Amino acid sequence: MTSPYLDKHRDRLDAAVAACASRTYYSAYDESPSPRVYGETAAGEGKAAFEAWLGQPFPLETPGSDGTVSTERSPYGFDLGVSYPRSGDVDALLSAARAGMKAWRDAGPEARTGVCIEILDRLHARVFELANAVQHTSGQAFVMAFQAGGAHALDRALEAIAYAWVEMTRTPRTAVWEKPGKVPLKMEKTFTVVPRGVALVIGCNTFPTWNSWPGLFASLVTGNAVVVKPHPSAVLPLAITVQVCQEVLAEAGFDPHLVNLAAEEPADRLAASLALRPEVKLIDYTGGNAFGTWLEEHATQAVVFTEKAGVNTVVVDSTSSFGAMCQNLAFSFALYTGQMCTAPQNVYLPAAGIETDEGVKSPAEVAAGIGAAFDKLLGEDARAVELLGGVVNGGVLTRLDDSGSTGEVYVASRAVTHPSYPDATVRTPTIIGLTAADSDVYETECFGPVAYVIATEGTEESIRLFRDTVQRHGAMTASVYSTSEDVIEEMRDAALDAGVALSENLLGAVFVNQSAAYSDFHGTGANPAANASYTDGAYVASRFHVVQSRRHV
Amino acid sequence: MTSPYLDKHRDRLDAAVAACASRTYYSAYDESPSPRVYGETAAGEGKAAFEAWLGQPFPLETPGSDGTVSTERSPYGFDLGVSYPRSGDVDALLSAARAGMKAWRDAGPEARTGVCIEILDRLHARVFELANAVQHTSGQAFVMAFQAGGAHALDRALEAIAYAWVEMTRTPRTAVWEKPGKVPLKMEKTFTVVPRGVALVIGCNTFPTWNSWPGLFASLVTGNAVVVKPHPSAVLPLAITVQVCQEVLAEAGFDPHLVNLAAEEPADRLAASLALRPEVKLIDYTGGNAFGTWLEEHATQAVVFTEKAGVNTVVVDSTSSFGAMCQNLAFSFALYTGQMCTAPQNVYLPAAGIETDEGVKSPAEVAAGIGAAFDKLLGEDARAVELLGGVVNGGVLTRLDDSGSTGEVYVASRAVTHPSYPDATVRTPTIIGLTAADSDVYETECFGPVAYVIATEGTEESIRLFRDTVQRHGAMTASVYSTSEDVIEEMRDAALDAGVALSENLLGAVFVNQSAAYSDFHGTGANPAANASYTDGAYVASRFHVVQSRRHV
Repeated sequence: MTSPYLDKHRDRLDAAVAACASRTYYSAYDESPSPRVYGETAAGEGKAAFEAWLGQPFPLETPGSDGTVSTERSPYGFDLGVSYPRSGDVDALLSAARAGMKAWRDAGPEARTGVCIEILDRLHARVFELANAVQHTSGQAFVMAFQAGGAHALDRALEAIAYAWVEMTRTPRTAVWEKPGKVPLKMEKTFTVVPRGVALVIGCNTFPTWNSWPGLFASLVTGNAVVVKPHPSAVLPLAITVQVCQEVLAEAGFDPHLVNLAAEEPADRLAASLALRPEVKLIDYTGGNAFGTWLEEHATQAVVFTEKAGVNTVVVDSTSSFGAMCQNLAFSFALYTGQMCTAPQNVYLPAAGIETDEGVKSPAEVAAGIGAAFDKLLGEDARAVELLGGVVNGGVLTRLDDSGSTGEVYVASRAVTHPSYPDATVRTPTIIGLTAADSDVYETECFGPVAYVIATEGTEESIRLFRDTVQRHGAMTASVYSTSEDVIEEMRDAALDAGVALSENLLGAVFVNQSAAYSDFHGTGANPAANASYTDGAYVASRFHVVQSRRHV
Repeated sequence: MTSPYLDKHRDRLDAAVAACASRTYYSAYDESPSPRVYGETAAGEGKAAFEAWLGQPFPLETPGSDGTVSTERSPYGFDLGVSYPRSGDVDALLSAARAGMKAWRDAGPEARTGVCIEILDRLHARVFELANAVQHTSGQAFVMAFQAGGAHALDRALEAIAYAWVEMTRTPRTAVWEKPGKVPLKMEKTFTVVPRGVALVIGCNTFPTWNSWPGLFASLVTGNAVVVKPHPSAVLPLAITVQVCQEVLAEAGFDPHLVNLAAEEPADRLAASLALRPEVKLIDYTGGNAFGTWLEEHATQAVVFTEKAGVNTVVVDSTSSFGAMCQNLAFSFALYTGQMCTAPQNVYLPAAGIETDEGVKSPAEVAAGIGAAFDKLLGEDARAVELLGGVVNGGVLTRLDDSGSTGEVYVASRAVTHPSYPDATVRTPTIIGLTAADSDVYETECFGPVAYVIATEGTEESIRLFRDTVQRHGAMTASVYSTSEDVIEEMRDAALDAGVALSENLLGAVFVNQSAAYSDFHGTGANPAANASYTDGAYVASRFHVVQSRRHV
């Protein structure tokens, strides 16, 4: 079978499939927002397109909707004022979502894969508009919104499609089976990919596209209908997404309501009521632990993929470059004000200090070193905001304000004034000194710009605390600094036990909180922070079934 | 990495992997118990080995056990009298199971795959002993016990190992990632397969090996420890299995208690208490719907694979060979007294009759045709028992006795006397005539030798009832007889909607209740009868995680 869209995108698909298998570098969407890449007018046009939505009703129709909602305020200090249909009659919504599934199923993997990559192409054409939408819902700085919310999100989506493609096509469409014997038996068999049902995608505030697209496209390409329930504070990026999905689906002759936006008032608790519906067979969720665990325990009619929160850890034993280590850590703490599920939080290091190229450094001196790196990175407000972005919501600010109540404030947070958005709340990270005894503080995720430097008896205890904390509370990332191969080996072993990805001696321009599509797995599923990974076989294989028929020939 | 056992079995693994991808015929274990294949003495030695267990304590040590249990009685009319350690202290059991996991994980996919195929080799060497054990726990006739319980079960186990091998090795062990740019970034990455935890395998009475081995080996080869909880009436086949697993694990230098037998008194409800333990992360279950659904809803800490029960359906519209159709159906109803999860139960056909090469046949005439085929197949007791085997338990007999209370008994069941085992309970199938209105009867699985011939308004209603019944109550198999391409097409479509495998116009020596490893999927996961399939990607992909580490190079 062929499909015009698949023919068009075949090289891209093949390259993505190959990269997933080799785990070497690949990217299909340029991460540089430079005019040299995207043209002189792209940035301005994208910004204008974003601004044209402000204060307007977004032109999407949600089946069964009842009135509208308008719930977004930019962390940069203004209301977006975009209104969306408010999801109302869930029966009508799910029934409309299911109506097109049969034709979508019967179209086959080739047609679905072609349509999904075409959708990515169209989203890519609107990447500047999306970047503005991500910036003004998540609070990310523009370049990060362009990269993480645009180009990298597209790569993660393509990765999910590539994995699903491999999984759907590992069984041939038809096969002839011939059993030898006195009377040979010969049968022709047909194998068809059938979807599970309706997939629910529950978006988050901080990464509305990067965290929603993999699940959305993994479910859609395998034949399911998708209901996208955005975070009330980050609707626009997903509204644009749904608009593009519907546009391409309709052009390709499919029911546009295979993908729907289900917007709500925060008090509607729409995610919970959708999640328990028998029609909903797949759920992708990014967000807090309480609701994620509730979904895992209660939505038993569905396969549930969760990315929740954990306690990301750095074990510092020694380093060949104190300055580079402090700079690398400072960047990781500061990037998007630490509002990343992958941002490090706990730094375990010996109370007696660590060996470095600049001599032994005590915990206080390590904190001071990171503080000095903050000064370089964030000393100038205009430069600082491009790294920090804005504080996404009041919860982050409250946690930051409360963070000094236990321990010693090694580095204080500083308020930054945004030159273009004076109403934005911008803060630099704080570093708090704790001891191993303060587990009631450091064993909880403090989402936002708070880092703990935790003095231990030595690296053995650091590694033990790391293994134990992650096994019990989860983590999305871990890293280690050591000049000792033995310590590195012990940390690798502990990271396998704890089921968390490990970065070793990051001293350059790779940061623990960043993962590269097609090569780095994001999350492992092997610790409490997430039950799934972007993207492995398990992330796609259970989104569909194979149904066969057979006959003698 | 290499492994001596993998080197030894590499060709077999490669052949199985290739067959799974092509879905063409393959078998690694000869299904013929003939002396020409297995040698003159094999059958006698296997029987003697089986008989040597009778009345003896089985030499297995179960950590935390408390006394022994002896719970098996052959459906052929004698107590086995084998005693097994009774599982007692679950903490001790699970702790012993976990003790060897780290070394098993660190050994890597190559070593684990080699060890698992070596276990199959050793089980194959004891295939006649296993066949006797399966015969005298399930009640299957000897040849079927040899094939389904021996050779085919080994093939299904190898299939699961092959799928897991592909899944574990789709990510390379190491990769170098190099991002171009002004300052190119280069990282070396290591990817490690890590297990989920302890896997619980809950065996069934009728297919103790065929239904338990795929899950057992899929979990073991991916690095998990396995606790095997056999059905109290079918312990011996799994005790032998665990013995062989432990023997090979120990020889290869691993902890033998990576695989354990957890035998019980039926009242112990051991499966339920094990299933909710936090250490248990994988559950494979074959059995009734009530406990299967309970597991799916309550064991939320684990990934649960269930094969439950459904209502297997035949839609008869017309046929080119009335005799061949009746023979084929009769065989399917009679094989192992209909005590197969894949045996057909509901035959929908038009009240006005079907077109055949012998003229129009009414429902009563179709039943009579199948009855006549029964007479040929089962008329002689000595031949009949080789197809029927024995009634596995009293529940089957009760359902058979009660089956005529609604509808018309078209064909009555007959008691058969086993020439060698006069105490065995052997019955031929009954065929009951119903109408579409009798849904309270035919919408429930009547496990055993009871078939319903259900008169409908026509094939349209037959297909509608088929689709509807399977969507609501599930099915492991479906088949259709029609000379009309349009009807076949409608049935294919309905089978996709219902999510069940379809066999079309089986008129020869392939039967709807048989599936071929590497080619036919057993179960789809897409209807209520099972949430999993032997074997697709979803069956193996979520049994492990991939954990990475990365560093600059």
